Parts: sequence; C-alpha cells; structure tokens
Amino acid sequence: MEFFKVISVDETRDILNKLANKKQNNTEKVSLLKSLGRTCARDILSTVNLPSFNKSTVDGYALKHRDINGASESIPSMLDLVGIVKMGISEELSIKSGECVYVPTGGEIPKGADSVAMIEYSERFGADTILIQKSTSLGENILYEGDDIKKDQVIIPKGKLINAYDIGLLAGLGIVELEVSKKLKVAILSTGDEIIDIDEKSEKTSVRDINGYALYSLCESLGCEIVDKKIVKDNFERLKETLESMKNQAELILMSGGSSVGTKDYTKELIESFPNSQVLVHGIAIKPGKPTIIGEIEDTVIIGLPGHPVSSLIVFKALVESFIRKISGSLEGEKIQIEGILREDVHNAPGRETYQMVNLTYKDNEYIVNPIYGKSGMISLLTKNNAYICLTKDMEGMRKGTKVKVNLLQEANL
Amino acid sequence: MEFFKVISVDETRDILNKLANKKQNNTEKVSLLKSLGRTCARDILSTVNLPSFNKSTVDGYALKHRDINGASESIPSMLDLVGIVKMGISEELSIKSGECVYVPTGGEIPKGADSVAMIEYSERFGADTILIQKSTSLGENILYEGDDIKKDQVIIPKGKLINAYDIGLLAGLGIVELEVSKKLKVAILSTGDEIIDIDEKSEKTSVRDINGYALYSLCESLGCEIVDKKIVKDNFERLKETLESMKNQAELILMSGGSSVGTKDYTKELIESFPNSQVLVHGIAIKPGKPTIIGEIEDTVIIGLPGHPVSSLIVFKALVESFIRKISGSLEGEKIQIEGILREDVHNAPGRETYQMVNLTYKDNEYIVNPIYGKSGMISLLTKNNAYICLTKDMEGMRKGTKVKVNLLQEANL
Repeated sequence: MEFFKVISVDETRDILNKLANKKQNNTEKVSLLKSLGRTCARDILSTVNLPSFNKSTVDGYALKHRDINGASESIPSMLDLVGIVKMGISEELSIKSGECVYVPTGGEIPKGADSVAMIEYSERFGADTILIQKSTSLGENILYEGDDIKKDQVIIPKGKLINAYDIGLLAGLGIVELEVSKKLKVAILSTGDEIIDIDEKSEKTSVRDINGYALYSLCESLGCEIVDKKIVKDNFERLKETLESMKNQAELILMSGGSSVGTKDYTKELIESFPNSQVLVHGIAIKPGKPTIIGEIEDTVIIGLPGHPVSSLIVFKALVESFIRKISGSLEGEKIQIEGILREDVHNAPGRETYQMVNLTYKDNEYIVNPIYGKSGMISLLTKNNAYICLTKDMEGMRKGTKVKVNLLQEANL
Repeated sequence: MEFFKVISVDETRDILNKLANKKQNNTEKVSLLKSLGRTCARDILSTVNLPSFNKSTVDGYALKHRDINGASESIPSMLDLVGIVKMGISEELSIKSGECVYVPTGGEIPKGADSVAMIEYSERFGADTILIQKSTSLGENILYEGDDIKKDQVIIPKGKLINAYDIGLLAGLGIVELEVSKKLKVAILSTGDEIIDIDEKSEKTSVRDINGYALYSLCESLGCEIVDKKIVKDNFERLKETLESMKNQAELILMSGGSSVGTKDYTKELIESFPNSQVLVHGIAIKPGKPTIIGEIEDTVIIGLPGHPVSSLIVFKALVESFIRKISGSLEGEKIQIEGILREDVHNAPGRETYQMVNLTYKDNEYIVNPIYGKSGMISLLTKNNAYICLTKDMEGMRKGTKVKVNLLQEANL
C-alpha cells in the first residue's frame, strides 16, 4: 500500500524548489506606499542622477579652495560675498576668484566654487565681506551630481522584499508605482472528524481548528492572499469536492490532517483521484512531521501537513515558508541565527532531521536556549517557544552547555 | 534665544516614557484573524481546560496498566477488546480489569483506563482479543484534562503583540474576538522649501520627500494608522495651519525638517505658538540627530526629526520606535542583537551616543560588521545598511576586530 519511501529534508527542498521554479511569476503594479512588504518583480533602475545637482552638505560659504589656502583664525582669508543660495531655487549663481556665496545645507553649489567652508569657521566683516578661518580641500563639503546614485544604476534588485527604507529611496527617485509579484493565492483545509470551528458549539471530544487559524496567519504574514479556508470531516467525497473547488482558486493548498492517521488517511488517494495529479513526496525524514505529503493537482501545489499543531508549524517553518517565498519570486536573504547556550541535552536519530522547539532568553550577556518538551499534541507549546534548533541528519544529538545556532520563529533576514 | 540644553539619550527616553505612560490606552474589539500584529489590550484567560477530556497521544489500546505488568513479546498479556473510540464522538465507554478499548491519537480515554499501549506493541488475536507485548506505566500516552492549559490561566498577557502562533492557541480555546489597543493615529509632516512630492515636476534643486514616505512605511510596519501626510514649505502660517489640523486628528505628529536649520527652524516657535503646548526636548546628545525636538500640543505629541534621511531614520530607530510601541500599550520584548566582528574603527565623542549604520553579512561562520560611511545626505545609504551599532556616551570608540553588538534595522524581538 505504501509505495513511497521517506526522503530527506534536503531532497524535499529540491523537489519544492523545482515546483517553485516551474511556476510563472505573475506581477502587478502597485503605488509606492502599497509596495511595503511586497516582492519587487524586476530590477528598478534609477532614472536620474542623485543628487541632481552639486549640493552643499553644510551651512557655509561656497568658494574656490585656492583662495583660502592657509587660512587660520589668526590670519583669515577675506572674500566678497556675492550672493545667497536659497533652498529649492535654481538661480545659476557663479563666483570668481576672491568671491564666495552663502549656501545652506542641501543648497546648490554656484558655478566656479569647488568647496564649502563651514559657517562655524567664518566671520562676517561688514555687509559683503566674509572672513574664512580655516582652509578647505578640493570638493570639501560638496556632494556632486550622481555621487549618491547614478542614472541607470540598479537601486532595488528583482526579488527584494520592499521595506520602509526602500520606499524612502524610491520616493527620493520619484518612483510613483512599481511592479511587484502578485500575492500567492493560498487555500487552507483542515480535516478531521473531531475538528470544529472557533465559533461552533463544542462537544466534549471536539478539537478546535488550531492549524487552520495559525496557518492562515502565517501565510498572511508572508504576504499571501488566503482565498479559502475550510474545515471538512473525514469524508472522501466531501474532501474531493472541497479540493476541486480549492484547486481552481488557489496556487497552493495547505491541508492539515486530523490526527486520525492510519484508518482514514485519504490524502494520497485524494490527490491521485484527480486527473493530471501526482504525489511527489510521502514521508520526510524529519521529526516531527514525518507523514507530510506533497503533490500537485494540475498547477496547484498541495502540501498535507501533520495534524498536531506543533508538528504542522515546524514543517511550515522548515519547508513551506521558504517555498512560499521562492514561489512568490523572493530572493531569500540570509536567515539570522542567534548563538546560544543549550540548557539540556537534545537527542537525534541519525538519518533524520530533528527540529526542537526552544525558548530563547537573554541573560547575563548571553543567549540561553531552553528546549521545550511537552506531551504530543500540547498547544500551549505554541506560545512558550519563540525559536527552534535544527539537528541535521548526521548529528546524534547536542550536549547541554554547547553553543547552538538558533532560528527565530518570528524570522529576521539580512 | 536657545534656552534648551542638549540632553542625553537616556534622559530623552525617560521623557518619552512619561509621555507614553500619561496616555490612555484606547482599545477596540477585533475578530481573531484581524488581531494579527495587534497589541493584546488585556490578559486573556482560558475559559476551558485543554484538553477538555483525557486524550490519547498515540494510536493504541486504552487499558489498566496493572493488567499488562511484565508483558513482553514472548509473554504477551491478553485483553478483551470491548470497544473502539471514534474521533470527535463522546461515547462514555468504560473498561474493567482484563479489558481494553482501541483509541486513535487524540481520542478520548474510556473510563477505567489509566494508560495506552501503542498499537506497534500489540497483536490482534481473533476478533475480540488483543495481545499486548510491552507494559505501560500509569498515565503513559495520556494527556489528561487541563494538562495543556488550565481554565483561568493567562494564555496571552496584556501588551503582547499577537503573532500567528498566538492566533493558533486562541483558536484552540474558541476565542472568536479579542480586545486590542487601537491603532495609534500618526500624522506625518515634511517641511522645507526644496521638498516636493514623488509625482511633482522636479526643478533642478528640488528634493523629493524621502522622509515622509519612509516614516509613513515605518509607522505602518509598527501598526499605526496614518491619518495625514503633508509636505509644507517653510512658511510659518501655512505650517501652523497644518499643525492645527493635524493635532486634531493625530496622537503623534512626526515632523521632519528641511535641512535649512538655522535661518528657518521654526519648529520650536511653531509648537509654542499653540495654547497648552510645551517643548520638552530641544537637542539630544546623539549623532546623528542632535537637532531633534520633542513637544506637546494639547494631547498630541510632536517629534521634530532632522531633515537628512539617514539621521531622521536613526532617531526613529533609536527613540521613536519604542515610544510608539509603548504608547500603543506593547510590552517591549528583548531586542535581538547579533554579535559580529567590526571591520573598521568607529569613533565617538564621549558624552554623546553615536549610532553608526552598518552592513551586516554572514561569512565563514561569523557575522561581519561593515560600517557604512557616506557624505551627509546620501540616500543610497538607506538600503546599503541593514543594521546599526550604538556607541554609548562613555565609549570613545571601537577598534577594528572587536566583537560588537549589532541591532537589525528590520527588527526581531524575543
């Protein structure tokens, strides 16, 4: 009955990467402020030089540096003040030798000037004479046209998640709208005879739909559009109808099984009951999360996650999250990992990757890593953990006191 | 003319904390899925025990552990199978000595049973007889009612930012809506004669509104509601009108000055021109960001940030961000800091806090910290940096090669 063999986490990642690469990246245009958190769909080039003019970086006097060579407090250089630059107004001022022009920070450097003496090192002498008390070097306190950003330079690469700083930069270049990847359409299906919705009347043995809500929110945090979310009892025909409707709307279906594995594990049969479908992975050498299943129904990817909330969320973090990023056209940034001291031994069966939820705290100048164990199916673990560690398949375990690399549940990327 | 003295970053934080504490935390109810990223406004207690019944953590046979004491593969214990537990159905099954009931993972433990033998260690012998090949201990493979979460236990504390895992947990407890802090109402005002909007026709010396867009997005990332965003030229009356309208809509006004400090720095006068107003901070011992101003107009806090984008964003990260969190009722989590090797000397004038933007990369198993310098006013720095380091007022500098603590620009908290 079971034809699939358990495959490694790395093999699973390869399969998911192939699925992601096969998919076309659909794009749309959004206005600048709406692009926050979206994925840039093509390289954005600057259409201008920045600054667009030679600009003073200080309040002071624009002048020829040779005119004030050797100037000091005791022997200042004397220059004629021939003009004042106003902010935001281009006046085509120019200076000759022996002259200077007042320029505020950000103001345009007049023609002929090659440096700016800071106002702190000057003194006004009568109406139109300025004493300069410190020499300048060529180009001092000037930001030349294009020094900051050159026309046609790539300012935001394709695949970057747009953050607030990017939006500032894009605003600076007058970019009003940009092309981003369309939000990935995700459907979420929770199955199991015991699963009820949050507002349903609870029977004693019913269990509320934890996975559905957590997966919904995780996908939303990643910028997906949730097109459907359903709870369906373990009934082949009802499940098939639901998948039929979901595959027509969604690019990814995240299904999470009831815990009744064995007697009623229809997922593989369900997928294979559709024409143009295939099961690609059925069983991964990961703990927890072994019974994970990955398949395709036409162009829709379907991932069957374990029923236990912690297992399901670990598989999400270990495999699904980067798949969603990749399929959405994101370049994956380096994931931030924290080094901390392990407070208890953690075991692993070689050949398998173990993901252990931990609580990471900071104390006395170091990060402390407390593995959080609990009986299978406990959901209070969901919020006791804030991070996880990964024991790769060649590791037998890690000893208490070792320095370990910790991944945050609320991820941060470089 | 200048009555305010420059104060330390710590003193400024104290003033901001007092302002935040003074403010009433307005709350609203939102549905569970809408609570993602919001701040929990009061302790949420569980209204139920979880699990709500004694539950099996494995597929197997519920039995009395004394009945199978010493059971092994060669000498199995023989039990009568008297029932099968179905998922999601409460049937009030019970067993007596010598009996067992099949229970799937997550199924209810029948009365009288005190442990579950895993199906892997059993064999069916005829229709109604089960051979158990391994003994169990009292309570083995059972999650008792309330083991996971107890009724009236605080499950999400007031002040926590609700994440996807919290939403899973809340779903598990049947929490349909919850009380969260109202979004902080923020108005954003960019001033300066040279500042133009992203879609305005650009004169040679005009500068687009980088700060306005970056601050808008930063505030949005922090969950604020932006009620107004304007660009106003350096004209006292126009600025006053704008602030008048903004203070009536917003709880916080973020103003960022044109770079024309000195001649046209109206901010202090502007604030003080309102009745019931005060300037609390005018000048902070921080680099960059010294000219920052903090005041109040009636109940609205107004923060005047420097005009230079990098300076303005550093003051935002150093001071404004945690103020917004605090005023929104958030408990501040421990900020994740990464340890990395500094690649260049960084200097500091003692008595002042210096924030140095850096580019953090990961290479050969360590984090590398490259300080990014640029001429004042360069905006390409905005996206070259991904982190910053802080030199506190007692530090003279940090040497190349030192281990330094790095703060991420895209923050992660514990």
